[in-house]
This record gives sequence, structure tokens and C-alpha cells, in this order.
Amino acid sequence: MAAFIEPRILKGFRDFLPPAEIARRDLLEKIEASFRSFGFVPIDTPALEYTEILLGKGGGETEKQVYRFKDNGDRDVALRFDLTVPFARFVAEHRQEIALPFKRYHIAKVWRGENTQRGRYREFTQCDFDIVGSDSAAADFEILLMMKNALGVLGAGEVSIRLNHRGLFNRFLSRIGVLDKSVDILRAVDKLEKIGRDETLKLLSESTGTAKAEEVLKFIEIKGSFDEILNAMKEAASGNEACPEAERLMLIRRFMIDSGIAENFVLDPSITRGLDYYTGIVYETLLKEMPELGSVCSGGRYDNLAALYSKEAIPGVGSSIGIDRLIAGLEHLGKLQARPSYASAAIACIKEDKGGLNQALAEKFRQAGIPCEVFLDEAKLTKQFMLAEKKGLRWLIIPGEDPLKSPLILRDLPSRENKEGLSVEEAVKAMSALHHETQES
Amino acid sequence: MAAFIEPRILKGFRDFLPPAEIARRDLLEKIEASFRSFGFVPIDTPALEYTEILLGKGGGETEKQVYRFKDNGDRDVALRFDLTVPFARFVAEHRQEIALPFKRYHIAKVWRGENTQRGRYREFTQCDFDIVGSDSAAADFEILLMMKNALGVLGAGEVSIRLNHRGLFNRFLSRIGVLDKSVDILRAVDKLEKIGRDETLKLLSESTGTAKAEEVLKFIEIKGSFDEILNAMKEAASGNEACPEAERLMLIRRFMIDSGIAENFVLDPSITRGLDYYTGIVYETLLKEMPELGSVCSGGRYDNLAALYSKEAIPGVGSSIGIDRLIAGLEHLGKLQARPSYASAAIACIKEDKGGLNQALAEKFRQAGIPCEVFLDEAKLTKQFMLAEKKGLRWLIIPGEDPLKSPLILRDLPSRENKEGLSVEEAVKAMSALHHETQES
Repeated sequence: MAAFIEPRILKGFRDFLPPAEIARRDLLEKIEASFRSFGFVPIDTPALEYTEILLGKGGGETEKQVYRFKDNGDRDVALRFDLTVPFARFVAEHRQEIALPFKRYHIAKVWRGENTQRGRYREFTQCDFDIVGSDSAAADFEILLMMKNALGVLGAGEVSIRLNHRGLFNRFLSRIGVLDKSVDILRAVDKLEKIGRDETLKLLSESTGTAKAEEVLKFIEIKGSFDEILNAMKEAASGNEACPEAERLMLIRRFMIDSGIAENFVLDPSITRGLDYYTGIVYETLLKEMPELGSVCSGGRYDNLAALYSKEAIPGVGSSIGIDRLIAGLEHLGKLQARPSYASAAIACIKEDKGGLNQALAEKFRQAGIPCEVFLDEAKLTKQFMLAEKKGLRWLIIPGEDPLKSPLILRDLPSRENKEGLSVEEAVKAMSALHHETQES
Repeated sequence: MAAFIEPRILKGFRDFLPPAEIARRDLLEKIEASFRSFGFVPIDTPALEYTEILLGKGGGETEKQVYRFKDNGDRDVALRFDLTVPFARFVAEHRQEIALPFKRYHIAKVWRGENTQRGRYREFTQCDFDIVGSDSAAADFEILLMMKNALGVLGAGEVSIRLNHRGLFNRFLSRIGVLDKSVDILRAVDKLEKIGRDETLKLLSESTGTAKAEEVLKFIEIKGSFDEILNAMKEAASGNEACPEAERLMLIRRFMIDSGIAENFVLDPSITRGLDYYTGIVYETLLKEMPELGSVCSGGRYDNLAALYSKEAIPGVGSSIGIDRLIAGLEHLGKLQARPSYASAAIACIKEDKGGLNQALAEKFRQAGIPCEVFLDEAKLTKQFMLAEKKGLRWLIIPGEDPLKSPLILRDLPSRENKEGLSVEEAVKAMSALHHETQES
């Protein structure tokens, strides 16, 4: 054979070896269990779509990032860069098949050909959950509650879920006469944490002049309790006039108190989310032990999800867990459990021709709910001990002459102690309690 | 707003609505649980790789099918068309990080830009499991056992797992002097079931002449019990000389008997698998109730998985479940459980401002392991009953004035009967037993 091909992957893409993949799946399975317990249902959509569908008429920044090409049939196609646009297309296309309000989750990969930075990848997983077809405060609140629950089961410690109302902010901008500059203002405000107060003021002043820029900054810097902030915002945005956006926040606040979880949420007028399409409530989540990581779960309410593809106005609210960023945070905090295998035990291979009996023996443990591997190749026992340890197993079972009938030896790998002369039933019993305890921890 | 964009997807691609996606996930989760119980570990690799890595030096048929393009950095890239080639690259690249034998599974999407046919898609899921680094018969057998177990939990009824040994076939070809034509012969034999005996004979004759073609057909048509077929094949392939391939099959046969599952497997000399890279045992699986569907799980042994990327020879054996084909089969047989939701119950919305208390109420059911949705919008109860039925829920809970404290009404949706005046605890108790029973069925 001639030259080898050097094994390598594209920059910004990753292989997941078993410990990393198991850790990732553990987290995703917990998140998914939380979604399911709320009655959210999964959907899936293609990785590849018509470019026109994904980019709409605009494009701009997104267009530069997207993996776009002509397929064999000369169609202009692209890899999805998020799960929101495909969801909008999905809702418009399947409107007659789904009952509104529709609560869905979608966990899948997306691709962006942007420049790679530390902790940013060209292929990453998004984990979206949305309610479309309900304009109620109850829907806004349900997404908040799901954020709290889904993040609560991940062992990431305390989270701070910060929220705001984009409509209330706009009402304020309108009152001070700079609503026509809202896109620039939103982008500037969204950078506050990154670039600091002075730079933000400078940026704001460019579009609104210094006086108005100061007013905007003052608004987003309102401090106090939830109720104090809300009152001050209402006052600044509408004076004594009716303010449905503040009413909405008050109702959500009441839901928080009624369900006993008010302390998890912070009203923060500086949260606006850069993206244009939010119109109502917006959310961001920080890990209390690592706020510098940035938001690990964000979202908000949009007036009309499927506007590009349908004349029916469908309101929606949703959020997205940044699982890759969350994993980076958990890793940094030493809170990521990286198991090398799902198995707890293995059957040692004493004689290769016992392969069938060894599998029959392993099956007895599997039937008892103990995942059990079978070692396939004859090797010295010390080598098999080492292999079992490397695989992170709890036990190695050394079968006797007749694996199904002879007494066996149960080696406890962490303590390196052997229990000899056990029957299969005795071994199952000794292992069961410990195995299930470990699984639940 | 001006023109809408018509919502549509690319031909050969699919949206999965919740019932289809839940059915798919149910199957995949069962398969995965089976893999995990054997100590197989998950990996993941990028969807996009260098074209050189995926296509190697060859290409041929595959090259025409692949989604290939230049990325923004002018790199020649392609979407993976299977999970075997990326696995070969993965093993070569991470050789120092993995312990051999390495048992992995990988469930992920692959893309092929081929012409769409009934039941064939351009995006589909593969579900691969392999053991690399062991040349043992125990590894060959473990893959067979996993095929049996993984398919056994899916409710697809009886399966017939057919196996053969590519090496034994080659030894036979060598003995009758046509080994140099093996690629053409393998392709012809692989078509036997599709094109029939006469056409296969014609095809074979083109490369070997009629006399040899008849000999080949006679070989692959050997009938009898496992042992009879094996003896006749050995005789035809090696006469009285040593035949390690037949020895290997005999040992695997012994493992089947030892583990009490021999009746699940059929030795079939006509199974050769078209693909070039198999060198040892090969497998195919048919649903007994629907053999015309074709193989739903196939694979085999290859001498040197990572040959293209590494000088170290790493033998392997593996198989792949065609989950899309399997789903089509289950659907046809009426055996696919298409649940519209994971939830069992919902809280009716009597007053919208009870949103927080309704969530607190739902949380009590969720804590008891009963997935519970909350309806968000005020509507007539009859409408809410209908919505709950459409979602396939078992119960609708109608809360009282104070959802947490007032007695509630529990509506059993299938029987349309109400139980009135229940406390939360009484409702949980009444639902728990039934819920868990349903989940296990």
C-alpha cells in the first residue's frame, strides 16, 4: 500500500471520546427528562435546507457564517445555523397537523462557519424549547420554570435567571423619543457587560446624542428588589399611563410567588438580547459560581414566529440551553462526572472457548439490571484487572471451570478485594444494592 | 410585508412530527439501553470532514452520492455518508487514548445525495456497533448476540439472523480457481434474492464461464441444518485440508449452543455482503413476518479497519441497525407505538391568573413521576377535554378555586368519567399505579 492519509478533523469540529460523550449524554438525558415531564414533545428537522428558507431575505452577518453550497441537483442549500428558523418553517408547513399551543423541544447539532475562538465551535449542539400559539403570561412563566427545572437537575449549582421585557424597554425608548434608533441601542446595551459603561455610553451617544444616551444608561442601571425595579421601570416608561408590559411582568411575578420559586429570578433592565426578533419577555441565565462564563440559557418572546412563511400570526416564547458552554463551565468547576463506561462489571476471560458460557453468565447480571461487559481475549489476570480499572468498572467477575455452575470470584476493583466461592445468585445480590445506589448518586 | 417564502423541505429529507419522533426515540433508547448493558460506549464525530478522509483515494459510486463542497476557507469538505469511515479515522487518530479491544456504538445521521426511492432518504440515521482490536471468535459472537438482544427489545417479532464467513467463500473460490474474479462474483451473489437464480447465473457466467458459475451457485445453495451446511461448505472449500474459517464458524456455533440461543441463527452460504471490506464473518437480519423488507441489521468482520490512516493493523467486527427501514417495517406490521406525548396528565386552565398555582400543582404530579402538562389559556372545559384527548393524555385535572388546597376533579379521558372531590394526594395515588403500569407495557 502506498501513502497513508493523515487522520485529522476540520478546525472548529470535535471528536467526542467515550468519557466526554457519556458526560454530554448524561446532561442531555436529564434535560430531556425535565422537558418531557412538562409535556413538551420532540420534533426533528433536516440538517440541510434550501438556503432561501434558512436565510430568508436578509442574511447579513448570518450569511457569512453559513455553510452554503450547490447540491448535485444544483439546488442552493445550506446547513442549519440554529433551530429557530427551521422551527418557524416547520410550524408554517405543518400548521394543520399540530394543535396550538404547541410545546416542543429540539436537541440537535447546528453549524456555523465562523472564526473559531476559545470555547466556540463550528459544530455545536442546541437544546431549544418553545411554546408557540399562546400569548399568555402563563406561557412566559412556564418557559422560566422549565429553565429553572432543567438547569436544576444538572448539578451546576445555583443559577441566577435574569429577565426583562423588551416591550417595556421599547416603550421607554419611545417616551424619550429614540425608538427609531432601537436596533443600534439594543446592540449597544447588549455589549454593556463586555465593553463597560464608558464604551457603551460612547456607542449609544453615536446614535442618540449624549443626553439621551445617559437616560438610556440610567434606565438599564435601575437597582433594587424585583418590585422596586419594576415600579421604577414602569414610571420611566409610561409615567402614570397604562403599561401592559409592566402588568405582564407583575403577573409573572405573582406566578413566581404562587409557585414558591420567586427567589430564583432577577429583574434586570440591562438584559435586552441583541437579536431583533424578541418583542416581549427576554431571559438570560448565569451560573452563580461562574458568571464570567456568560449566559448558559437564554431566550424570549417573539410576536410572530412564522412571519416569513405564513400569513397567520403565531406568537411564541422559548429558550435555549447552550450545552457546550454549560459543559465548559461544569468542567471548569470540577462538576462534570466523566464516567468512562456505562458498565459496572465485566466477566474475565480465562479460556477463550468459554465465550458462549461467559456471555450466558453476563446475561444473568444484565437481567438483574447490572450492565456487564464480557472480556473477549485470554490474558493474564493482572492485565484484565488493569483493563477493568481503566474502564472505570466496579467489579471484575472471575468465572470458574463452568462459568454458569462453578463458584466464581467477585473482585471489588476500588478496594482490590476478592470475594471467593460465590454462586451467581450471591454475586448478583452483593452487587445489586451497590450498583443501584451508585446509579442514583 | 411583501412576498412570503414558501415553506418546503428538500426532496429526500424529512420533518419528524412528535408522534413519529417519539416512536423513533423510543426505539433508539431501547437499542441504546441494550448496547450499554453490554458495556459498549458511545462516541461522536463531526458531520463534516475533509473529503480526502471520507472518500480515501477511491471514490467510485460513493463519490457520486456524497454532499461535497468548498467551505469558506476553500477546504474540500463533505458530509459523512456512513459512520464506518469516520470511525476508522477516529481509531487511527485516538489510538493512544483508547484501550483495545474497544467496543463502541454511534447513533447519528448520515447524508447521501443519491436518487430518492421509496423508503430511501438522503438523510437517515445509522446505528452502528463495533468491536475493534480483537480477532477472537468471542467478538464475532458478541456482535451476533447484541444483534439478537437489541432487535429483541423492539417488539418487531421474531427475527432470523443469517450468517456466513466471507473467508470460507473466498477459500472456495480459490479452490475452483476463480478467486481473481471475487469482486464481480460477490456483487452478483449479493443480488441473488433481488434478481433470481437465472439472472444471477447469467451475471456470474459473464465473469467465470457457465461451468464455474454453476459451481458457485451450487455452493451458495447448500441447504440443511447449521452443522450439515457447515460440513458441506468445508468439504467444498477445502476438502480434507485444514480450514480455519470453518473452525471459526464451529466455535461460534458452540458459543450459540452454550449460551442457549442457537435457534436464532441460520448459516446461509448465499450471504456475502456486497461491500469489499468484509473478510470474515458476515451477518444479515430479516424480520420473519416481513422478509421482503430486506435486512434490518447487517455487518461483518473486517481485517484492518484503519488501514487507510494508520500502519497498525486493527481488526474489527461490527454491525449496523437500519433504523429507518426497521421503522418502516414496524409501521407496516402495525407494531409501531405512536404516542403523541410523553405526558400522562394535564392541569386544565380555569382562570389564567392561577398560572403559578397550576404549575405548583403540576409539580406535585411530576414529583410523583407522572409527567404533567399545564394548559395555559382560559377556554371552555369541553375544548380543554378535546385538546387533552388530541394529545393522547390519560387524565385531565380540573383544579378548584385554590389549586393547591381545594378538592380537584380527576377526569379519566378514555372512559370520560370524573372523580370529584379528590385531594392532591388522593389523585396522585389513583394515578400512580396506572401510570407506571402503562409505561411498562
